[in-house]
Amino acid sequence: MKKRELQILLDKQEIYEVVLRYCRGIDRVDMDLVRSCYWPKAVDHHTGFTGTRDQYVTWVEPLVRGFTGTMHLVGNHLVEIEGNVARSETYGTAYHWGEPAKDSRRNFVSGFRYVDKFERRKGVWRIARRHAVREWTLRVGEEQRLEREGEGPVGSRDSADPLYLSID
Amino acid sequence: MKKRELQILLDKQEIYEVVLRYCRGIDRVDMDLVRSCYWPKAVDHHTGFTGTRDQYVTWVEPLVRGFTGTMHLVGNHLVEIEGNVARSETYGTAYHWGEPAKDSRRNFVSGFRYVDKFERRKGVWRIARRHAVREWTLRVGEEQRLEREGEGPVGSRDSADPLYLSID
Amino acid sequence: MKKRELQILLDKQEIYEVVLRYCRGIDRVDMDLVRSCYWPKAVDHHTGFTGTRDQYVTWVEPLVRGFTGTMHLVGNHLVEIEGNVARSETYGTAYHWGEPAKDSRRNFVSGFRYVDKFERRKGVWRIARRHAVREWTLRVGEEQRLEREGEGPVGSRDSADPLYLSID
Repeated sequence: MKKRELQILLDKQEIYEVVLRYCRGIDRVDMDLVRSCYWPKAVDHHTGFTGTRDQYVTWVEPLVRGFTGTMHLVGNHLVEIEGNVARSETYGTAYHWGEPAKDSRRNFVSGFRYVDKFERRKGVWRIARRHAVREWTLRVGEEQRLEREGEGPVGSRDSADPLYLSID
Repeated sequence: MKKRELQILLDKQEIYEVVLRYCRGIDRVDMDLVRSCYWPKAVDHHTGFTGTRDQYVTWVEPLVRGFTGTMHLVGNHLVEIEGNVARSETYGTAYHWGEPAKDSRRNFVSGFRYVDKFERRKGVWRIARRHAVREWTLRVGEEQRLEREGEGPVGSRDSADPLYLSID
Repeated sequence: MKKRELQILLDKQEIYEVVLRYCRGIDRVDMDLVRSCYWPKAVDHHTGFTGTRDQYVTWVEPLVRGFTGTMHLVGNHLVEIEGNVARSETYGTAYHWGEPAKDSRRNFVSGFRYVDKFERRKGVWRIARRHAVREWTLRVGEEQRLEREGEGPVGSRDSADPLYLSID
């Protein structure tokens, strides 16, 4: 069997899941989960911010809480692994909604790429460096709000979210 | 070789493909394909609906046919497997277009998460419970229609779709 | 171990990465990378174009360069492999931005499906036939531009893009 190819597949999946846990952490405002995606001394470059992991979390948490909700949808995930480091590029769109609905600083969509350097230490992959490349921002005005609807399952940032339902 | 890790990888892929076949089933209006994604007694919670698999299909089919077309694009797929059950979260955006083009009830985009409980029975993974969490709805008005263009390959809900071309 | 299932998993990953390299090639305007995704005699069907690989690249490059930037975000990737051929369907949305910002021919989002026939030759998977199905086009007008922001990492079509940073 192709041991090496299969190990690379496992590595790619592990790296992909770190990216997904980061998104979940931000969207559910689970800052411990966000923190767990980075090595402690990792450097994050965001629009308007550069700093270490803990500095980043301190900076981003109040921004995230300023919205009613966010959704970081990611697609393309292309990884090149070289030993214990990896280059990981992830494409995504981030939806932000808040009050008042007509405030385009509280209601916008952005297109981004996470260009990450991952490092594996003691068998665990985490982000060692991130560039969150902002590609575009689409401001949503009064006419075209990101509306919530109330007739069915809705998302929540606490334990009421269906994500936390038991699967027993 | 890491047998257990590889089996989990195969399971995740199988679960992912069930989610994708569900999307294809809705978008091509192939209701048998939709049905095949659920266990018969599965419960589906959608905006404005809760019921079993067959009740869901009965409810959703005329809604889907009310549009000219739909496209359920999914990204983030994060799964936790515990024996023969799994928690699966999928992020997506659903595009709906129809006539008249200026009717925002026929032309909108929604952001959702499928929060699913999957069950494996006799080696097969299917949905046992679904919460389709509606995160936001973006109504598309007269100014910004989801237009069709006719100069090249277009989608279809019947055998004319390129999806059904032979690959021989 | 399930050798056959694991080989299929490796094949699917390889096919997925070809699709991703195509997107990267277009978005970074790396036409050699685009070309490397197809077999030389592959036929590509796009909106307003049908032709071979090289004809396609000749046609598409000036179109791509006519925009300030593009981003081809893909999600759903569903593949059926039959020996050395495969049917691959990929869902995506393509964001295009350019000048002037109020020109909706330079600023639009499209929804598409790549319906591909892949062929494996000497162990390598590439596109043998592509139908780029245009599902919808959303024109972005003066009110709702795809804006660039300058305070942090921005994308580039040359070696300045963070993608090309060393990971040493």
